[in-house]
Amino acid sequence: MTHTAKLVVRSYELDSYNHVNNANYLNYLEFGRMEFLRAIGFDYEGLIASGYYLYVTHIDIRYKASARLFDELSIEVEPIKLGKVSGTFHQVVRNQRGEVCVEADVSWGCVDHSGKPSKLPDNFFVDGLRPEIKA
Amino acid sequence: MTHTAKLVVRSYELDSYNHVNNANYLNYLEFGRMEFLRAIGFDYEGLIASGYYLYVTHIDIRYKASARLFDELSIEVEPIKLGKVSGTFHQVVRNQRGEVCVEADVSWGCVDHSGKPSKLPDNFFVDGLRPEIKA
Amino acid sequence: MTHTAKLVVRSYELDSYNHVNNANYLNYLEFGRMEFLRAIGFDYEGLIASGYYLYVTHIDIRYKASARLFDELSIEVEPIKLGKVSGTFHQVVRNQRGEVCVEADVSWGCVDHSGKPSKLPDNFFVDGLRPEIKA
Amino acid sequence: MTHTAKLVVRSYELDSYNHVNNANYLNYLEFGRMEFLRAIGFDYEGLIASGYYLYVTHIDIRYKASARLFDELSIEVEPIKLGKVSGTFHQVVRNQRGEVCVEADVSWGCVDHSGKPSKLPDNFFVDGLRPEIKA
Repeated sequence: MTHTAKLVVRSYELDSYNHVNNANYLNYLEFGRMEFLRAIGFDYEGLIASGYYLYVTHIDIRYKASARLFDELSIEVEPIKLGKVSGTFHQVVRNQRGEVCVEADVSWGCVDHSGKPSKLPDNFFVDGLRPEIKA
Repeated sequence: MTHTAKLVVRSYELDSYNHVNNANYLNYLEFGRMEFLRAIGFDYEGLIASGYYLYVTHIDIRYKASARLFDELSIEVEPIKLGKVSGTFHQVVRNQRGEVCVEADVSWGCVDHSGKPSKLPDNFFVDGLRPEIKA
Repeated sequence: MTHTAKLVVRSYELDSYNHVNNANYLNYLEFGRMEFLRAIGFDYEGLIASGYYLYVTHIDIRYKASARLFDELSIEVEPIKLGKVSGTFHQVVRNQRGEVCVEADVSWGCVDHSGKPSKLPDNFFVDGLRPEIKA
Repeated sequence: MTHTAKLVVRSYELDSYNHVNNANYLNYLEFGRMEFLRAIGFDYEGLIASGYYLYVTHIDIRYKASARLFDELSIEVEPIKLGKVSGTFHQVVRNQRGEVCVEADVSWGCVDHSGKPSKLPDNFFVDGLRPEIKA
Protein backbone atom coordinates (compact mmCIF):
# COMPACT_ATOMS: atom_id res chain seq x y z
CA MET A 1 0.00 0.00 0.00
CA THR A 2 1.25 3.46 -0.87
CA HIS A 3 -0.10 6.32 1.19
CA THR A 4 -0.02 9.87 -0.14
CA ALA A 5 -0.06 13.06 1.93
CA LYS A 6 -0.29 16.52 0.36
CA LEU A 7 1.26 19.83 1.22
CA VAL A 8 1.96 23.18 -0.40
CA VAL A 9 5.45 24.73 -0.32
CA ARG A 10 5.59 27.72 2.04
CA SER A 11 7.71 30.86 1.63
CA TYR A 12 9.85 30.25 4.71
CA GLU A 13 10.95 26.85 3.36
CA LEU A 14 12.92 28.40 0.49
CA ASP A 15 16.64 29.03 0.47
CA SER A 16 18.64 31.80 -1.20
CA TYR A 17 18.03 30.19 -4.60
CA ASN A 18 14.26 30.14 -4.22
CA HIS A 19 14.35 26.35 -3.95
CA VAL A 20 13.12 24.31 -1.05
CA ASN A 21 16.19 23.82 1.16
CA ASN A 22 17.59 20.25 1.36
CA ALA A 23 16.88 19.80 5.04
CA ASN A 24 13.23 20.79 4.58
CA TYR A 25 12.66 17.70 2.47
CA LEU A 26 13.44 15.60 5.53
CA ASN A 27 10.67 17.52 7.29
CA TYR A 28 8.32 16.82 4.39
CA LEU A 29 9.22 13.11 4.52
CA GLU A 30 8.58 13.05 8.28
CA PHE A 31 5.22 14.75 7.72
CA GLY A 32 4.37 12.06 5.14
CA ARG A 33 5.32 9.24 7.53
CA MET A 34 3.30 10.71 10.40
CA GLU A 35 0.24 10.98 8.14
CA PHE A 36 0.85 7.41 6.98
CA LEU A 37 1.02 6.16 10.58
CA ARG A 38 -2.26 7.92 11.42
CA ALA A 39 -3.86 6.43 8.30
CA ILE A 40 -2.94 2.84 9.21
CA GLY A 41 -4.08 3.34 12.81
CA PHE A 42 -0.66 3.17 14.41
CA ASP A 43 -0.79 4.60 17.95
CA TYR A 44 2.47 6.54 17.97
CA GLU A 45 1.70 8.61 21.05
CA GLY A 46 0.65 5.47 22.94
CA LEU A 47 3.94 3.81 22.01
CA ILE A 48 5.92 6.75 23.37
CA ALA A 49 3.80 6.75 26.54
CA SER A 50 4.64 3.04 26.99
CA GLY A 51 8.34 3.82 27.07
CA TYR A 52 9.26 2.88 23.51
CA TYR A 53 10.57 5.08 20.78
CA LEU A 54 10.90 4.78 17.01
CA TYR A 55 13.92 6.55 15.66
CA VAL A 56 15.32 7.01 12.20
CA THR A 57 18.53 5.06 11.63
CA HIS A 58 19.25 5.72 7.98
CA ILE A 59 18.08 8.03 5.21
CA ASP A 60 19.17 7.69 1.61
CA ILE A 61 17.77 10.64 -0.32
CA ARG A 62 18.20 11.55 -4.00
CA TYR A 63 17.33 15.09 -5.10
CA LYS A 64 15.95 15.08 -8.65
CA ALA A 65 14.13 18.36 -9.25
CA SER A 66 13.75 21.37 -7.03
CA ALA A 67 10.42 22.46 -5.61
CA ARG A 68 9.36 26.09 -5.54
CA LEU A 69 6.96 28.42 -3.76
CA PHE A 70 3.33 27.25 -3.84
CA ASP A 71 4.20 23.94 -5.52
CA GLU A 72 1.67 21.29 -4.49
CA LEU A 73 3.65 18.29 -3.36
CA SER A 74 2.53 14.69 -2.86
CA ILE A 75 4.51 12.81 -0.23
CA GLU A 76 4.24 9.07 -0.84
CA VAL A 77 5.10 6.41 1.74
CA GLU A 78 5.36 2.69 1.15
CA PRO A 79 6.73 0.12 3.60
CA ILE A 80 9.26 -2.03 1.76
CA LYS A 81 10.95 -3.96 4.59
CA LEU A 82 9.95 -5.14 8.04
CA GLY A 83 12.26 -6.89 10.48
CA LYS A 84 11.95 -7.73 14.18
CA VAL A 85 13.24 -4.42 15.50
CA SER A 86 13.35 -2.29 12.38
CA GLY A 87 11.88 -1.51 8.99
CA THR A 88 12.21 0.63 5.87
CA PHE A 89 9.89 2.99 4.02
CA HIS A 90 10.29 4.05 0.43
CA GLN A 91 9.22 7.66 -0.05
CA VAL A 92 8.70 9.79 -3.14
CA VAL A 93 7.94 13.51 -3.31
CA ARG A 94 6.20 14.58 -6.51
CA ASN A 95 5.11 18.02 -7.66
CA GLN A 96 1.75 18.94 -9.23
CA ARG A 97 3.09 18.07 -12.70
CA GLY A 98 3.92 14.53 -11.56
CA GLU A 99 7.68 15.12 -11.63
CA VAL A 100 9.73 13.43 -8.95
CA CYS A 101 11.45 16.02 -6.73
CA VAL A 102 12.92 13.61 -4.24
CA GLU A 103 13.18 9.87 -3.77
CA ALA A 104 14.24 8.36 -0.43
CA ASP A 105 14.56 5.22 1.64
CA VAL A 106 14.06 5.80 5.33
CA SER A 107 14.88 3.11 7.88
CA TRP A 108 13.67 3.08 11.45
CA GLY A 109 14.42 1.09 14.56
CA CYS A 110 12.49 0.53 17.76
CA VAL A 111 14.22 1.06 21.13
CA ASP A 112 12.99 0.66 24.68
CA HIS A 113 13.31 3.30 27.42
CA SER A 114 16.94 2.34 28.03
CA GLY A 115 17.78 2.93 24.37
CA LYS A 116 18.27 -0.75 23.52
CA PRO A 117 16.91 -2.14 20.22
CA SER A 118 13.63 -3.78 21.02
CA LYS A 119 10.85 -5.64 19.26
CA LEU A 120 7.90 -3.35 18.57
CA PRO A 121 5.37 -4.47 21.26
CA ASP A 122 2.64 -6.72 19.76
CA ASN A 123 -0.21 -4.52 20.93
CA PHE A 124 1.19 -1.64 18.87
CA PHE A 125 1.78 -3.63 15.73
CA VAL A 126 -0.59 -2.85 12.85
CA ASP A 127 -0.84 -4.61 9.51
CA GLY A 128 -0.16 -1.47 7.49
CA LEU A 129 3.52 -1.61 8.55
CA ARG A 130 3.96 -4.79 6.54
CA PRO A 131 5.24 -4.54 2.97
CA GLU A 132 2.72 -5.80 0.45
CA ILE A 133 3.39 -9.25 -0.87
CA LYS A 134 3.99 -8.90 -4.56
CA ALA A 135 3.44 -12.32 -6.09
CA MET B 1 42.49 16.37 4.00
CA THR B 2 39.76 16.34 6.59
CA HIS B 3 38.42 19.69 7.70
CA THR B 4 36.63 20.04 11.03
CA ALA B 5 34.12 22.74 11.97
CA LYS B 6 32.70 23.09 15.47
CA LEU B 7 29.28 24.02 16.80
CA VAL B 8 27.27 23.73 19.99
CA VAL B 9 23.73 22.30 19.95
CA ARG B 10 21.12 25.01 20.50
CA SER B 11 17.81 24.66 22.33
CA TYR B 12 15.64 25.31 19.26
CA GLU B 13 17.28 22.42 17.40
CA LEU B 14 15.76 19.80 19.73
CA ASP B 15 12.64 17.80 19.04
CA SER B 16 10.01 16.47 21.47
CA TYR B 17 12.46 13.84 22.71
CA ASN B 18 15.18 16.33 23.56
CA HIS B 19 17.29 15.03 20.69
CA VAL B 20 18.53 17.03 17.78
CA ASN B 21 15.89 16.58 15.08
CA ASN B 22 16.93 14.52 12.00
CA ALA B 23 16.59 17.37 9.56
CA ASN B 24 18.84 19.60 11.66
CA TYR B 25 21.77 17.29 11.00
CA LEU B 26 21.52 18.19 7.32
CA ASN B 27 21.86 21.81 8.41
CA TYR B 28 24.92 20.90 10.48
CA LEU B 29 26.42 19.05 7.51
CA GLU B 30 25.79 22.06 5.26
CA PHE B 31 27.43 24.31 7.85
CA GLY B 32 30.45 21.97 7.84
CA ARG B 33 30.71 22.03 4.04
CA MET B 34 30.45 25.82 3.87
CA GLU B 35 33.24 26.17 6.44
CA PHE B 36 35.29 23.63 4.48
CA LEU B 37 34.81 25.60 1.24
CA ARG B 38 35.93 28.81 2.96
CA ALA B 39 38.96 27.00 4.40
CA ILE B 40 40.15 25.74 1.00
CA GLY B 41 39.61 29.15 -0.60
CA PHE B 42 36.68 28.17 -2.79
CA ASP B 43 34.84 31.30 -4.01
CA TYR B 44 31.25 30.12 -3.66
CA GLU B 45 29.66 33.53 -3.94
CA GLY B 46 31.75 34.30 -7.03
CA LEU B 47 30.59 31.05 -8.61
CA ILE B 48 26.94 31.95 -8.03
CA ALA B 49 27.55 35.46 -9.40
CA SER B 50 29.02 33.85 -12.57
CA GLY B 51 25.77 32.00 -13.19
CA TYR B 52 26.75 28.58 -11.85
CA TYR B 53 25.28 26.69 -8.97
CA LEU B 54 26.37 23.70 -6.86
CA TYR B 55 23.48 21.61 -5.71
CA VAL B 56 23.21 18.51 -3.57
CA THR B 57 22.18 15.46 -5.58
CA HIS B 58 22.36 12.69 -2.99
CA ILE B 59 22.70 12.32 0.76
CA ASP B 60 23.21 8.99 2.49
CA ILE B 61 23.06 9.58 6.23
CA ARG B 62 23.32 7.06 9.10
CA TYR B 63 22.17 8.16 12.56
CA LYS B 64 24.30 6.47 15.25
CA ALA B 65 23.86 8.38 18.50
CA SER B 66 21.66 11.33 19.32
CA ALA B 67 23.03 14.72 20.20
CA ARG B 68 21.60 16.79 23.03
CA LEU B 69 21.45 20.35 24.29
CA PHE B 70 24.87 22.04 24.62
CA ASP B 71 26.72 19.08 23.09
CA GLU B 72 29.87 20.29 21.34
CA LEU B 73 29.86 18.78 17.89
CA SER B 74 32.69 18.44 15.38
CA ILE B 75 31.56 18.40 11.77
CA GLU B 76 34.17 16.71 9.61
CA VAL B 77 34.34 16.99 5.83
CA GLU B 78 36.55 15.01 3.49
CA PRO B 79 36.33 14.98 -0.32
CA ILE B 80 36.28 11.33 -1.45
CA LYS B 81 35.32 11.59 -5.12
CA LEU B 82 35.75 14.17 -7.85
CA GLY B 83 34.33 13.87 -11.34
CA LYS B 84 33.96 16.33 -14.21
CA VAL B 85 30.61 17.78 -13.11
CA SER B 86 30.19 16.30 -9.65
CA GLY B 87 31.85 15.07 -6.49
CA THR B 88 31.27 13.49 -3.08
CA PHE B 89 32.14 14.46 0.47
CA HIS B 90 32.30 12.08 3.39
CA GLN B 91 31.09 13.76 6.58
CA VAL B 92 31.15 12.68 10.21
CA VAL B 93 29.54 14.42 13.18
CA ARG B 94 31.15 13.62 16.52
CA ASN B 95 30.25 14.78 20.01
CA GLN B 96 32.67 16.02 22.71
CA ARG B 97 33.26 12.43 23.87
CA GLY B 98 34.41 11.40 20.40
CA GLU B 99 31.30 9.33 19.71
CA VAL B 100 29.97 9.36 16.18
CA CYS B 101 26.47 10.88 16.06
CA VAL B 102 26.07 10.84 12.31
CA GLU B 103 27.97 9.60 9.29
CA ALA B 104 27.06 10.74 5.78
CA ASP B 105 28.07 10.82 2.14
CA VAL B 106 26.98 13.95 0.34
CA SER B 107 27.20 14.24 -3.44
CA TRP B 108 27.01 17.48 -5.38
CA GLY B 109 26.70 18.47 -8.99
CA CYS B 110 27.49 21.69 -10.84
CA VAL B 111 24.87 23.24 -13.13
CA ASP B 112 24.95 26.32 -15.32
CA HIS B 113 22.29 29.07 -15.30
CA SER B 114 19.99 26.98 -17.50
CA GLY B 115 20.12 24.12 -15.00
CA LYS B 116 22.23 21.84 -17.21
CA PRO B 117 25.07 19.79 -15.65
CA SER B 118 28.24 21.68 -16.30
CA LYS B 119 31.95 21.40 -15.62
CA LEU B 120 32.98 23.54 -12.68
CA PRO B 121 34.71 26.52 -14.41
CA ASP B 122 38.53 26.24 -14.20
CA ASN B 123 38.98 29.60 -12.52
CA PHE B 124 36.85 28.40 -9.62
CA PHE B 125 38.55 25.07 -9.18
CA VAL B 126 40.73 24.74 -6.07
CA ASP B 127 42.97 21.85 -5.10
CA GLY B 128 41.20 21.21 -1.81
CA LEU B 129 38.24 19.72 -3.72
CA ARG B 130 40.42 16.81 -4.83
CA PRO B 131 40.42 13.64 -2.75
CA GLU B 132 43.80 12.83 -1.27
CA ILE B 133 45.71 10.15 -3.06
CA LYS B 134 46.14 7.28 -0.68
CA ALA B 135 48.98 5.15 -2.01
CA MET C 1 -11.78 42.13 5.55
CA THR C 2 -10.25 39.29 7.55
CA HIS C 3 -8.68 36.49 5.57
CA THR C 4 -8.20 33.05 7.14
CA ALA C 5 -5.65 30.43 6.09
CA LYS C 6 -5.60 26.94 7.59
CA LEU C 7 -2.78 24.59 8.51
CA VAL C 8 -2.19 21.54 10.67
CA VAL C 9 0.68 21.42 13.19
CA ARG C 10 3.46 19.09 12.03
CA SER C 11 5.71 16.93 14.21
CA TYR C 12 8.92 18.75 13.33
CA GLU C 13 7.47 22.05 14.52
CA LEU C 14 7.36 20.93 18.17
CA ASP C 15 9.98 21.72 20.77
CA SER C 16 11.16 19.65 23.77
CA TYR C 17 7.88 20.39 25.56
CA ASN C 18 5.69 19.12 22.74
CA HIS C 19 4.57 22.66 22.04
CA VAL C 20 4.97 24.52 18.82
CA ASN C 21 8.23 26.43 19.19
CA ASN C 22 7.94 30.26 19.45
CA ALA C 23 9.79 30.95 16.24
CA ASN C 24 7.51 28.64 14.26
CA TYR C 25 4.57 30.94 14.94
CA LEU C 26 6.36 33.63 12.93
CA ASN C 27 6.48 31.10 10.10
CA TYR C 28 2.75 30.45 10.51
CA LEU C 29 2.06 34.19 10.46
CA GLU C 30 4.15 34.58 7.29
CA PHE C 31 2.24 31.70 5.70
CA GLY C 32 -1.02 33.47 6.58
CA ARG C 33 0.15 36.75 5.07
CA MET C 34 1.32 35.10 1.86
CA GLU C 35 -2.06 33.38 1.46
CA PHE C 36 -3.77 36.70 2.18
CA LEU C 37 -1.71 38.46 -0.51
CA ARG C 38 -2.60 35.77 -3.05
CA ALA C 39 -6.27 36.05 -2.07
CA ILE C 40 -6.40 39.81 -2.66
CA GLY C 41 -4.54 39.48 -5.97
CA PHE C 42 -1.33 41.15 -4.86
CA ASP C 43 1.50 40.33 -7.31
CA TYR C 44 4.32 39.75 -4.84
CA GLU C 45 6.65 38.05 -7.29
CA GLY C 46 6.09 40.82 -9.84
CA LEU C 47 6.96 43.42 -7.21
CA ILE C 48 10.24 41.66 -6.43
CA ALA C 49 11.00 41.35 -10.15
CA SER C 50 10.49 45.14 -10.46
CA GLY C 51 13.20 45.78 -7.90
CA TYR C 52 11.04 46.44 -4.86
CA TYR C 53 10.88 44.50 -1.65
CA LEU C 54 8.45 44.34 1.26
CA TYR C 55 10.15 43.64 4.53
CA VAL C 56 8.90 43.19 8.06
CA THR C 57 9.86 46.08 10.32
CA HIS C 58 8.11 45.19 13.57
CA ILE C 59 6.33 42.23 15.13
CA ASP C 60 4.49 42.41 18.43
CA ILE C 61 3.39 38.90 19.34
CA ARG C 62 1.52 37.65 22.43
CA TYR C 63 1.55 33.92 23.16
CA LYS C 64 -1.75 32.89 24.83
CA ALA C 65 -2.10 29.12 24.53
CA SER C 66 0.26 26.55 23.12
CA ALA C 67 -0.52 24.54 20.02
CA ARG C 68 0.20 20.81 19.81
CA LEU C 69 0.69 18.07 17.25
CA PHE C 70 -2.11 17.80 14.68
CA ASP C 71 -3.91 20.91 15.99
CA GLU C 72 -5.82 22.56 13.15
CA LEU C 73 -4.90 26.21 13.20
CA SER C 74 -6.60 29.17 11.55
CA ILE C 75 -4.28 32.02 10.69
CA GLU C 76 -6.23 35.25 10.39
CA VAL C 77 -4.93 38.41 8.70
CA GLU C 78 -6.54 41.83 8.73
CA PRO C 79 -4.94 45.05 7.48
CA ILE C 80 -5.33 47.68 10.19
CA LYS C 81 -3.07 50.50 8.99
CA LEU C 82 -1.84 51.74 5.63
CA GLY C 83 0.65 54.54 5.15
CA LYS C 84 2.60 55.78 2.13
CA VAL C 85 5.55 53.42 2.52
CA SER C 86 4.32 51.02 5.18
CA GLY C 87 1.38 49.26 6.79
CA THR C 88 0.29 46.95 9.59
CA PHE C 89 -1.58 43.66 9.73
CA HIS C 90 -3.34 42.29 12.77
CA GLN C 91 -3.02 38.50 12.94
CA VAL C 92 -4.65 35.90 15.17
CA VAL C 93 -3.88 32.18 15.34
CA ARG C 94 -6.75 30.08 16.66
CA ASN C 95 -6.94 26.34 17.27
CA GLN C 96 -9.83 24.02 16.30
CA ARG C 97 -11.61 24.81 19.59
CA GLY C 98 -11.61 28.52 18.77
CA GLU C 99 -9.03 29.35 21.44
CA VAL C 100 -6.54 32.07 20.61
CA CYS C 101 -2.99 30.65 20.55
CA VAL C 102 -1.26 33.78 19.37
CA GLU C 103 -2.16 37.39 18.63
CA ALA C 104 0.20 39.65 16.71
CA ASP C 105 0.65 42.97 14.94
CA VAL C 106 3.02 42.81 12.02
CA SER C 107 4.27 45.98 10.30
CA TRP C 108 5.89 46.08 6.90
CA GLY C 109 7.73 48.64 4.84
CA CYS C 110 8.43 48.94 1.14
CA VAL C 111 11.97 49.59 -0.07
CA ASP C 112 13.43 50.04 -3.54
CA HIS C 113 16.44 48.16 -4.90
CA SER C 114 18.83 50.48 -3.07
CA GLY C 115 17.14 49.69 0.25
CA LYS C 116 15.52 53.14 0.60
CA PRO C 117 11.92 53.39 1.91
CA SER C 118 9.74 53.79 -1.13
CA LYS C 119 6.07 54.21 -2.00
CA LEU C 120 4.56 50.92 -3.13
CA PRO C 121 4.32 51.43 -6.95
CA ASP C 122 0.73 52.25 -8.03
CA ASN C 123 0.49 49.36 -10.45
CA PHE C 124 1.07 46.93 -7.58
CA PHE C 125 -1.39 48.49 -5.21
CA VAL C 126 -4.56 46.47 -4.59
CA ASP C 127 -7.61 47.50 -2.59
CA GLY C 128 -7.34 44.56 -0.20
CA LEU C 129 -4.35 46.20 1.48
CA ARG C 130 -6.56 49.01 2.75
CA PRO C 131 -8.04 48.69 6.23
CA GLU C 132 -11.81 48.57 6.19
CA ILE C 133 -13.48 51.80 7.08
CA LYS C 134 -15.42 51.23 10.26
CA ALA C 135 -17.94 54.03 10.47
CA MET D 1 24.29 43.36 33.70
CA THR D 2 24.26 42.78 29.98
CA HIS D 3 25.38 39.39 28.78
CA THR D 4 26.60 38.90 25.22
CA ALA D 5 26.60 35.64 23.26
CA LYS D 6 28.17 35.34 19.82
CA LEU D 7 27.22 33.40 16.71
CA VAL D 8 27.96 33.41 13.00
CA VAL D 9 25.13 33.43 10.42
CA ARG D 10 24.83 30.06 8.67
CA SER D 11 23.78 29.44 5.08
CA TYR D 12 20.57 27.59 5.94
CA GLU D 13 19.31 30.56 7.95
CA LEU D 14 18.95 32.77 4.85
CA ASP D 15 15.74 33.35 2.94
CA SER D 16 15.20 33.95 -0.78
CA TYR D 17 16.62 37.46 -0.42
CA ASN D 18 19.89 36.32 1.17
CA HIS D 19 18.81 37.84 4.45
CA VAL D 20 18.38 36.01 7.70
CA ASN D 21 14.71 35.06 7.81
CA ASN D 22 12.55 36.87 10.43
CA ALA D 23 11.74 33.76 12.41
CA ASN D 24 15.43 32.85 12.74
CA TYR D 25 16.01 35.96 14.83
CA LEU D 26 13.71 34.49 17.46
CA ASN D 27 15.99 31.45 17.47
CA TYR D 28 19.01 33.72 17.88
CA LEU D 29 17.31 35.53 20.75
CA GLU D 30 16.49 32.19 22.42
CA PHE D 31 20.11 31.12 21.99
CA GLY D 32 21.20 34.36 23.67
CA ARG D 33 18.83 33.86 26.60
CA MET D 34 19.93 30.24 27.13
CA GLU D 35 23.57 31.35 27.20
CA PHE D 36 22.65 34.14 29.62
CA LEU D 37 20.88 31.67 31.94
CA ARG D 38 23.94 29.40 31.93
CA ALA D 39 26.19 32.38 32.64
CA ILE D 40 24.21 33.47 35.72
CA GLY D 41 24.04 29.89 37.02
CA PHE D 42 20.32 29.39 36.50
CA ASP D 43 19.48 25.66 36.61
CA TYR D 44 16.98 25.50 33.76
CA GLU D 45 17.03 21.73 33.40
CA GLY D 46 16.55 21.31 37.15
CA LEU D 47 13.55 23.64 37.04
CA ILE D 48 11.93 21.57 34.30
CA ALA D 49 12.69 18.37 36.21
CA SER D 50 10.90 19.90 39.24
CA GLY D 51 7.71 20.33 37.23
CA TYR D 52 7.99 24.01 36.41
CA TYR D 53 8.30 25.64 33.06
CA LEU D 54 9.31 29.09 31.82
CA TYR D 55 7.47 30.12 28.72
CA VAL D 56 7.59 33.19 26.55
CA THR D 57 4.46 35.31 26.83
CA HIS D 58 5.30 38.29 24.67
CA ILE D 59 7.90 39.33 22.12
CA ASP D 60 8.15 42.83 20.70
CA ILE D 61 10.79 42.80 17.99
CA ARG D 62 11.98 45.62 15.70
CA TYR D 63 13.97 44.73 12.60
CA LYS D 64 16.52 47.46 11.81
CA ALA D 65 19.11 46.01 9.46
CA SER D 66 19.34 42.65 7.82
CA ALA D 67 22.07 40.15 8.63
CA ARG D 68 23.83 38.17 5.92
CA LEU D 69 25.88 35.02 5.47
CA PHE D 70 28.91 34.79 7.79
CA ASP D 71 27.99 37.96 9.67
CA GLU D 72 29.28 37.73 13.24
CA LEU D 73 26.40 38.61 15.51
CA SER D 74 26.39 39.58 19.18
CA ILE D 75 23.22 38.67 21.02
CA GLU D 76 22.83 40.85 24.10
CA VAL D 77 20.50 40.09 26.99
CA GLU D 78 19.63 42.37 29.86
CA PRO D 79 16.91 41.76 32.48
CA ILE D 80 14.79 44.91 32.70
CA LYS D 81 11.78 43.77 34.76
CA LEU D 82 11.16 41.14 37.41
CA GLY D 83 7.79 40.38 38.94
CA LYS D 84 6.51 37.55 41.14
CA VAL D 85 5.64 35.16 38.31
CA SER D 86 7.18 36.87 35.30
CA GLY D 87 9.92 39.08 33.93
CA THR D 88 11.24 40.84 30.85
CA PHE D 89 14.56 40.80 29.01
CA HIS D 90 15.75 43.48 26.64
CA GLN D 91 17.73 41.97 23.75
CA VAL D 92 19.81 43.52 21.01
CA VAL D 93 21.41 41.77 18.05
CA ARG D 94 24.41 43.63 16.60
CA ASN D 95 26.59 42.75 13.62
CA GLN D 96 30.41 42.89 13.50
CA ARG D 97 30.25 46.57 12.49
CA GLY D 98 28.29 47.42 15.63
CA GLU D 99 25.07 48.08 13.73
CA VAL D 100 21.84 47.03 15.40
CA CYS D 101 20.08 44.34 13.37
CA VAL D 102 17.28 43.65 15.80
CA GLU D 103 16.02 45.04 19.06
CA ALA D 104 13.50 43.13 21.18
CA ASP D 105 11.73 42.89 24.51
CA VAL D 106 10.95 39.35 25.54
CA SER D 107 8.66 38.59 28.48
CA TRP D 108 8.44 35.26 30.24
CA GLY D 109 6.17 33.69 32.80
CA CYS D 110 6.62 30.76 35.16
CA VAL D 111 3.96 28.03 35.29
CA ASP D 112 3.67 24.89 37.38
CA HIS D 113 2.99 21.41 35.99
CA SER D 114 -0.74 22.16 35.72
CA GLY D 115 -0.01 25.21 33.58
CA LYS D 116 -0.99 27.74 36.25
CA PRO D 117 1.13 30.90 36.72
CA SER D 118 3.42 30.23 39.62
CA LYS D 119 6.14 31.95 41.59
CA LEU D 120 9.59 30.80 40.46
CA PRO D 121 10.62 28.44 43.34
CA ASP D 122 13.12 30.14 45.71
CA ASN D 123 15.76 27.46 45.29
CA PHE D 124 15.92 28.22 41.57
CA PHE D 125 16.08 31.97 41.90
CA VAL D 126 19.44 33.53 41.07
CA ASP D 127 20.48 37.15 41.44
CA GLY D 128 21.32 37.58 37.78
CA LEU D 129 17.60 37.59 36.93
CA ARG D 130 17.19 40.88 38.77
CA PRO D 131 17.42 44.11 36.78
CA GLU D 132 20.29 46.30 37.87
CA ILE D 133 19.33 49.21 40.01
CA LYS D 134 20.25 52.34 38.16
CA ALA D 135 20.38 55.13 40.71
